[in-house]
Amino acid sequence: MKTKRKIPSAPSVRRLPSYLTIVKQLQHEGNEHVSGTLIAREMGLESIQIRKDLAITGITGKPRIGYPVEGLVDAIERFLGWYDVQDAVLVGVGNLGSALMGYREFQSHCLNFVAAFDTDPRKIGARVHGIYVLSMETLEIEVRQWGIKIAVLTVPAEEAQAVTDILVRAGIEGIWNFTNVKLKVSDNVMVQREDLSSGYAMLSVMMKIKDKTVKKSS
Amino acid sequence: MKTKRKIPSAPSVRRLPSYLTIVKQLQHEGNEHVSGTLIAREMGLESIQIRKDLAITGITGKPRIGYPVEGLVDAIERFLGWYDVQDAVLVGVGNLGSALMGYREFQSHCLNFVAAFDTDPRKIGARVHGIYVLSMETLEIEVRQWGIKIAVLTVPAEEAQAVTDILVRAGIEGIWNFTNVKLKVSDNVMVQREDLSSGYAMLSVMMKIKDKTVKKSS
Repeated sequence: MKTKRKIPSAPSVRRLPSYLTIVKQLQHEGNEHVSGTLIAREMGLESIQIRKDLAITGITGKPRIGYPVEGLVDAIERFLGWYDVQDAVLVGVGNLGSALMGYREFQSHCLNFVAAFDTDPRKIGARVHGIYVLSMETLEIEVRQWGIKIAVLTVPAEEAQAVTDILVRAGIEGIWNFTNVKLKVSDNVMVQREDLSSGYAMLSVMMKIKDKTVKKSS
Repeated sequence: MKTKRKIPSAPSVRRLPSYLTIVKQLQHEGNEHVSGTLIAREMGLESIQIRKDLAITGITGKPRIGYPVEGLVDAIERFLGWYDVQDAVLVGVGNLGSALMGYREFQSHCLNFVAAFDTDPRKIGARVHGIYVLSMETLEIEVRQWGIKIAVLTVPAEEAQAVTDILVRAGIEGIWNFTNVKLKVSDNVMVQREDLSSGYAMLSVMMKIKDKTVKKSS
């Protein structure tokens, strides 16, 4: 069984990339300190939540001064391990795969796609957002040879487990799974499943709650 | 300020679509009841977490019997408002937009794209996954005319706020925002921001924790 419990509060971890974007922008603008209140406003959250979220990285703000901008960037990147470039492969160059390959934020988060893999002969040999698409037949050997540890899985659901088995054999230790399949892997392989419907569930609930309280709000 | 606090536990809400997929599959296979333990195994979570998550929909399982499958599907769909078809527009037909337009799960969640919008003359008039792409110039009039309440935003960051202003003027009440821009909207418009880096943050933390505990595990 995957031990989700060991992980610090999932919503806090999920928000860290947003903090990083905000704080890096402030750093870029030459700020040395940032108040929790300012971050709270940018995030649309309460200040107490900001303090709790950032505390998981080991950093605490000072009264009246706030957080040191550089220290905050360092703390978040260290906590996430986003200071060293992490090489990764992407498997399944469909619309979603292509979108992820072109997602610029990943580069600033040190996620580097060294190659993508697909079974479609028309895609193999092409470059998508500058990244070469290689034949799925070479997946195992290439991943092993390069010592890649991270794979992003955007294949059709029916291929998900078979591709996963190859990835695990080749030494992959972390799979970011965009299929709706619950992958079977050994305990030493981490799987983060991304369900695009989750966000729509949140939006649906927010809209329902608003409809109920709309009379009260201005 | 958006009132995230009013919303039931965000991780629980985010997991509901996964529950729905599992339970609908069981329903399809002719099961009348499902135990919390079985759902827990499918989700890779503890049984107590399953009970807490499902309790937000108002349903409780019975000892030794579990949950009625049909009742559970109903409760989740009612809680999310996913029983009536919700018409939506998608704005920005790039890779990510195209991927979302072709994402089959949305249909089973009653999310129906009536049209997509783009500024690219080569895309306008074409159909993507069966959905017509219309000119951005007609966005306001079409949304207002059809009475659409939900918009999915997949435009480039620099266009995000301008498009949002049009959407809000046209009567949109919920925006599912895939850009990394914090949108300024009036209090009666709900925004769910989707940061694709969030999942990578989770994976990074899981892999770091595993590296530390790898000696202990089998």
